[in-house]
Amino acid sequence: MLGPIAWATPPAAYGPWEQVTSHLTEGLVKKGIDVTLFATGTSKTAGKLIATTAFGYAEKSGQDPKVLEYLHISQVMGAAHKFDIVHNQFDFMPLGYSQLVHTPMVTTVHGFSSDHIVPVYQRYNDSTDYVSISDADRDDRIDYIATVYNGVDTSQFTINYKPQEYLAYFGRIHPEKGAAEAIAIAHRAKRPLIIAGLIQDHEYYREKVLPHIDDEQVRYLGNVGPDERDRILGGAAALLHPISFDEPFGLSVAESMMTGTPVIAFNRGAMPELIEHGRTGYLTDNVEEAAELVAMCGQLDRGEVAQVARDRFSVERMTEGYIEVYNTILDR
Amino acid sequence: MLGPIAWATPPAAYGPWEQVTSHLTEGLVKKGIDVTLFATGTSKTAGKLIATTAFGYAEKSGQDPKVLEYLHISQVMGAAHKFDIVHNQFDFMPLGYSQLVHTPMVTTVHGFSSDHIVPVYQRYNDSTDYVSISDADRDDRIDYIATVYNGVDTSQFTINYKPQEYLAYFGRIHPEKGAAEAIAIAHRAKRPLIIAGLIQDHEYYREKVLPHIDDEQVRYLGNVGPDERDRILGGAAALLHPISFDEPFGLSVAESMMTGTPVIAFNRGAMPELIEHGRTGYLTDNVEEAAELVAMCGQLDRGEVAQVARDRFSVERMTEGYIEVYNTILDR
Repeated sequence: MLGPIAWATPPAAYGPWEQVTSHLTEGLVKKGIDVTLFATGTSKTAGKLIATTAFGYAEKSGQDPKVLEYLHISQVMGAAHKFDIVHNQFDFMPLGYSQLVHTPMVTTVHGFSSDHIVPVYQRYNDSTDYVSISDADRDDRIDYIATVYNGVDTSQFTINYKPQEYLAYFGRIHPEKGAAEAIAIAHRAKRPLIIAGLIQDHEYYREKVLPHIDDEQVRYLGNVGPDERDRILGGAAALLHPISFDEPFGLSVAESMMTGTPVIAFNRGAMPELIEHGRTGYLTDNVEEAAELVAMCGQLDRGEVAQVARDRFSVERMTEGYIEVYNTILDR
Repeated sequence: MLGPIAWATPPAAYGPWEQVTSHLTEGLVKKGIDVTLFATGTSKTAGKLIATTAFGYAEKSGQDPKVLEYLHISQVMGAAHKFDIVHNQFDFMPLGYSQLVHTPMVTTVHGFSSDHIVPVYQRYNDSTDYVSISDADRDDRIDYIATVYNGVDTSQFTINYKPQEYLAYFGRIHPEKGAAEAIAIAHRAKRPLIIAGLIQDHEYYREKVLPHIDDEQVRYLGNVGPDERDRILGGAAALLHPISFDEPFGLSVAESMMTGTPVIAFNRGAMPELIEHGRTGYLTDNVEEAAELVAMCGQLDRGEVAQVARDRFSVERMTEGYIEVYNTILDR
């Protein structure tokens, strides 16, 4: 498992790629698979850990990320012959080695940080197998062996059958995530709104969010930990996810459904894959319709919402998905 | 020849690593060696050119240097089996591949951009052969197969047997290069001074250099082209090179000697390797002694200065040095 090395695997706080890498590594170990995780010395695993750097480059300053990356990747590649599969969770940089290493390489495409890196994925189309994290996130110029959804640790979420009246918004405070639209939907539906998430765009927060926070109808809680997240998501009548970009996956959408809370989302990116319209939530294109759909959420079976989510977005499901990919490759 | 890809090889203007790479490539081709240069599409060679990117990342904006680097290096490494030797002129990044590629790799260490990269060189000590550009630039933690001095195109320099009274300073205007000390030496020696070079540190220029420029005793010409460089270096009684850092090589020192003009340098870095004290110039530690040595320069045999420089620092000599390195490796 060639992990990212910005943060520890699993990360102490932020670190989405490291989180998914950790979930998968531990999931595979539980299945009895012999996994060696190449990551920072601050990482923890029930498998074998080979630390290629004491600290991640985002964990400790005064390090040269480029140097750490090259040392990390080349160390994994130098050891590749000892393994049946190399699973690359670390973007495009390991791809250049894929033609020189005889061990098959699987690469999870966590996202294209810029259009500049797509040609690198294209170049190595034939020497590695790409996995997309949603069908929506696929790029036409690249071949994929499978889509495997990111897995959520279901043990961190409780099914709540008796929600309250309020609506919830969970995510970064950034125009593309739609906190302002969530406020408009809540106002129109005459429901309280609880907002949680990191402020990424401060100007947007000051102009579009802050003026509406009255600590009664609209509350902002900042970034919340796992326990509070479980409680707030589970207690909501619905999660609002009015995005204005093609989100490749929506972690908070999966997490909300884990608690039985349906999601009203704008129909973009991976949303139609994550949400079954009329079963686990609703898809719409505008604030007005979203507000009307709020009342409909009460009719959905929260037990079923949670069950569907647990079936599709658990760490176990993700692990099975990757084992299937590994077997397909090894059987070739 | 794995060249750098910041600029074209040879560069249109600035690009010291590209310049040396071009000199060596053309020198090898002249010797009848079959050389393939991997570089930008803007490069030119009498050998074979394989362009891994249309433009260098410093030549054209809107490109991602990291992406271009990975594509460039991995393309060379993917083709390495077709060659007898891979010569890496592009810093530490190709080293990670050296354990995976069976073709022997030579790496010219053009300099350590920071102390962070030394551990990478250490790591691959056994899988590549390092060449230093001076003995002074060697790092104790790394093994070297040879020192090969950078080569200068001797055809750009004319031996001048009848110099004028003035002294010359050639180099970046930066505290470590010593323009201010050169002015002090010239004042003390009561000689005019001509300064040429790019202003790298503007505050230093304004405070320490500009106040002394009177267009008579001290003149500043900016960056000069090859013809003017030949004329000014050749016409000088001596080149002043009062550095305050351990310079790994000194191109202007070699160039000055090509015209017959001896060099008075502060005794640091590669200076004792470049200058033979009392034969091709003088080594000293301070402004006072440097000023006294100016008069001594008239006693040196300018024809001999030029001859020694041409023997030691020509492109032909560099090419022979590298052919020796290649043969040593291939004979192992």
